[in-house]
Amino acid sequence: MKSYRKEMWFETKNRRELINITPQIESCLKNSGIKEGLCLVNTMHITASVFINDDEPGLHNDFERWLERIAPEKPHGQYQHNGYEDNADAHLKRTIMGREVSYSDNKRKA
Amino acid sequence: MKSYRKEMWFETKNRRELINITPQIESCLKNSGIKEGLCLVNTMHITASVFINDDEPGLHNDFERWLERIAPEKPHGQYQHNGYEDNADAHLKRTIMGREVSYSDNKRKA
Amino acid sequence: MKSYRKEMWFETKNRRELINITPQIESCLKNSGIKEGLCLVNTMHITASVFINDDEPGLHNDFERWLERIAPEKPHGQYQHNGYEDNADAHLKRTIMGREVSYSDNKRKA
Repeated sequence: MKSYRKEMWFETKNRRELINITPQIESCLKNSGIKEGLCLVNTMHITASVFINDDEPGLHNDFERWLERIAPEKPHGQYQHNGYEDNADAHLKRTIMGREVSYSDNKRKA
Repeated sequence: MKSYRKEMWFETKNRRELINITPQIESCLKNSGIKEGLCLVNTMHITASVFINDDEPGLHNDFERWLERIAPEKPHGQYQHNGYEDNADAHLKRTIMGREVSYSDNKRKA
Repeated sequence: MKSYRKEMWFETKNRRELINITPQIESCLKNSGIKEGLCLVNTMHITASVFINDDEPGLHNDFERWLERIAPEKPHGQYQHNGYEDNADAHLKRTIMGREVSYSDNKRKA
C-alpha cells in the first residue's frame, strides 16, 4: 500500500484566522502520486481546526460572530482553563469547527 | 488493497430533512465484498451532514429545534453570507452536525 | 495490508465523565506492530464522544459548563426524545464534542 504524509506549519497574524489550504492539499495529493485512496487532513493542535466549507468572506464573518456568540473569548475569567492560559474559548470554538476532515477519491488524473 | 467507492445522490422535499441512509451503506458494504477495513461516509456538500445517531422522531425534532436555536435561519439579514444565498444557517447547522463519519469492522460475514 | 482492531469498554460512575484513554490507544498502537498508517478511534455509542484535547481539569470544567449551557439536561420535558429516555441532552452534547478522531503517523518507533 502506498502512503504519503506531510506536516505543514502555519503562522497566523491574528488570534483567529481562516487559511485556505486547499492548494497545499492539492499539491500533496499530486506529490503523493496516489490515484485512489483516503486523504486525512487533521490539525495537530488542540485550538486549531481543519474543516471544509465555502471560502467566502461573508460566511467567514458569520462564522466568526457565531463562534464568538457560542463561546465568547471575554471575559477571560469566565473559564477555569484561563488560570493557565487565556485561550479556553479557542478550545471550545475549535470543538465546534472540528479537528479533521477525511476525503476519498478514485478519479484523480495523473 | 481492495477498495470500493460509491456516490449517492439525495433530493429533499424540505429545506431540512433527515434521511436514514443506513440501508444504502449496508448495501455498499455488501457490494464491496470487503470483510475488513475502514468505511468513510462523507457528504460532498457544505450545507449537508452525515452523522450517526438514533433514528427516533422525537430526537429528530429535538435536533431541529436545537439547531434552530443555536443557528437560527431567520432573519436572513443577520448573516453576511446571505447577500449571496439564503443558507448561511445551513452552513452553521451542518458544522454542528459534522461532515462525515468513519467506521471500522473486521467481523463482517460474507 | 496490516490491520488491528480492538474494542474497549468503559463504565462511568457519573452521568457525564471524561476518561483519558491515551494510554490505552498507545498500547493498541504498540500491540498492533504497525509503524505507519491510520488510527481511527470512534465511539460505538450515540451518547458518547471520542475527542482530542487538553487533559486539564479547569478546561474539563469549562467544557462541562459550556455543554450544559448549550444543551441543558433539565428540564427533561423540554426534549421530545425524553418520552423514551432521559438522555436527549447527551445526544446533543455528544454531537458538539464529536464521535471520532483519526490520526496518522509514520514515525513510530518499534
